[in-house]
Amino acid sequence: MSTHTITANEMEAIATGGAFLGTGGGGDPYIGKLMAQAAIEQHGPVEVIAPEDVKDDWLCVPVCMMGAPTVMLEKLPAGDEANRALEQLEAFLGRKADALICIEAGGLNSTIPFAVAAATGLPLIDGDGMGRAFPELQMVSFTMQGVAATPMVIADEKGNSSVINAISNLWTERLARSQTIEMGGSALVALYPMSGEEVKRGILRHTLSLILDIGQVITGERGCNRNPATALIEKLNGKRLFSGRVIDIERKTEGGFARGRAVIKGMDEDQGRVFRVDFQNEFLIALDDDDKPLAVTPDLICALDADGGLPVTTEQLRYGLAVTMIGLPCDAQWRSPAGIELVGPGYFGYPQAYTPLEDLPL
Amino acid sequence: MSTHTITANEMEAIATGGAFLGTGGGGDPYIGKLMAQAAIEQHGPVEVIAPEDVKDDWLCVPVCMMGAPTVMLEKLPAGDEANRALEQLEAFLGRKADALICIEAGGLNSTIPFAVAAATGLPLIDGDGMGRAFPELQMVSFTMQGVAATPMVIADEKGNSSVINAISNLWTERLARSQTIEMGGSALVALYPMSGEEVKRGILRHTLSLILDIGQVITGERGCNRNPATALIEKLNGKRLFSGRVIDIERKTEGGFARGRAVIKGMDEDQGRVFRVDFQNEFLIALDDDDKPLAVTPDLICALDADGGLPVTTEQLRYGLAVTMIGLPCDAQWRSPAGIELVGPGYFGYPQAYTPLEDLPL
Repeated sequence: MSTHTITANEMEAIATGGAFLGTGGGGDPYIGKLMAQAAIEQHGPVEVIAPEDVKDDWLCVPVCMMGAPTVMLEKLPAGDEANRALEQLEAFLGRKADALICIEAGGLNSTIPFAVAAATGLPLIDGDGMGRAFPELQMVSFTMQGVAATPMVIADEKGNSSVINAISNLWTERLARSQTIEMGGSALVALYPMSGEEVKRGILRHTLSLILDIGQVITGERGCNRNPATALIEKLNGKRLFSGRVIDIERKTEGGFARGRAVIKGMDEDQGRVFRVDFQNEFLIALDDDDKPLAVTPDLICALDADGGLPVTTEQLRYGLAVTMIGLPCDAQWRSPAGIELVGPGYFGYPQAYTPLEDLPL
Repeated sequence: MSTHTITANEMEAIATGGAFLGTGGGGDPYIGKLMAQAAIEQHGPVEVIAPEDVKDDWLCVPVCMMGAPTVMLEKLPAGDEANRALEQLEAFLGRKADALICIEAGGLNSTIPFAVAAATGLPLIDGDGMGRAFPELQMVSFTMQGVAATPMVIADEKGNSSVINAISNLWTERLARSQTIEMGGSALVALYPMSGEEVKRGILRHTLSLILDIGQVITGERGCNRNPATALIEKLNGKRLFSGRVIDIERKTEGGFARGRAVIKGMDEDQGRVFRVDFQNEFLIALDDDDKPLAVTPDLICALDADGGLPVTTEQLRYGLAVTMIGLPCDAQWRSPAGIELVGPGYFGYPQAYTPLEDLPL
């Protein structure tokens, strides 16, 4: 896809597709959609450009929300934090941004950049740094490409902000996470300022087009009274993990994250089995009755409402909800040793080694 | 006193006097003294100027250490953090500082600015923002004068730093405290950038001369084999609270502070009585057997080793140590309603109302 424009209308499908690729996390995209739609109504549509059209010497900046999705549901942004974060980063760098990027292709963070792009008139690059959502800020392809997360600006809805300069992207995560917690559990950030050349080296390409596409498939299938699971699995080269009803859900907001696990009792062809999915903002691992993994981070674990067919975020999991869990292979960058070190099961404390989704039994 | 120069030799007395006015907190000034002496040996003596000689349009910047004194004893600074913090603040403001200030007249923070002054060649203004030490960064006379603590730079020994911009000095404290904790419990900061006019409006005058003086009294008395308590009480218009031996000490490092209490069994004329002193970095309240206050923040509670005569910090309190506790009246600014709100017993959660030291029974 080359340059095209996104109108308020298409934000509907982008929010839905983003919620699916968000692998349970990234926050409910509803608020982000409303923010993007309001900004587009006011300032006009957003120009989305292909990574190939980014000039090497451009300054490109990801803007996103940081924090626990459970907090974001209740602590609404004032609306201008992301713009303020971007402006302060530009002031610190002494240079205006030439384009914006989505840090992740999932949840709120695939819609908020549209709001900022509309308000600033900057183009948004078709791609992101994860190809999904991940809970921590160093977990982007750009880290593997040697791009520094700082200088980074973090801003809250009250008017507080910080410019962080850290010695590593992991230290940026630590310092920004403690600011996020102090700011009330969520904040808006502008980070990873990078050149167009760096963007082209690290970005996961055309993922905004992909989430628009996913959103349209979901809407289309639902319009025909079909659950989108089958169409999505086929389209995305995915795997049906299981279907079942939530019989137990455990969650806590700790360390600035929404952490927990859901126990799901199999239904239909999975009748008689019991499954478990763990999450830290995003789904990290899906296990069967014998604690054998069915899908492991960084591969994607996505949830669809088995009845309505809409994506389900971890905050929406509740007793009795029927879900279909789908596994998708992650981007090849994540399957490299550096990728597995950054976002593999070991980082999150799981003893299981990473096994690609395709090689795991069902 | 007008402009004079401070050599490495005089840092000895300044460190001792600073430990006394530090009211048990502000960190062990030993490290700060060594840093200042090393910087003076390398770069030459420090010029201390009277507040009256500060020009209205100067940019004046306090530099100090932030964190739990107990941490600072073991986590040594790399040496250049304070200079880096100052340089980054200057870069952010687009302007070089014309003079430095001590944020508090106590502990490490009355010696570290000498090290920075020596290294930068900047003059140090004779005065500070507290006339003692206090645990939180909004607790300075400049807050009462409407000076913002931000933009503020916080830097650690690893090379991490942040520029904080907050909506109030209390929010600055919260955001900077969480960064300090994440950085390992202590950090160096440059904050409250202010004009010479603001300095002259808010500064507690000539307190650096005062701590030099106090240090010289302590050294002089000890040289004559006298405990300096009597001479200091007379000189500073203070009050002997009690003498005794520590029979219980409780401390924890929580929320980035050293918090605790010491129980002290009276000796000499206080034989048969039992006292208690509470601290959050600094001594906050001294109580007698009936929980009746003998001295209450913001008045100063200072500890001297009853045997050796040197000031005692809260980290040095240990079972069996004999101490003489001395109360000193605080600066008049602290006794205003705004001062009591900022640093009075209510802020620290004590039910007792503030009563000036002179009006409390012994």
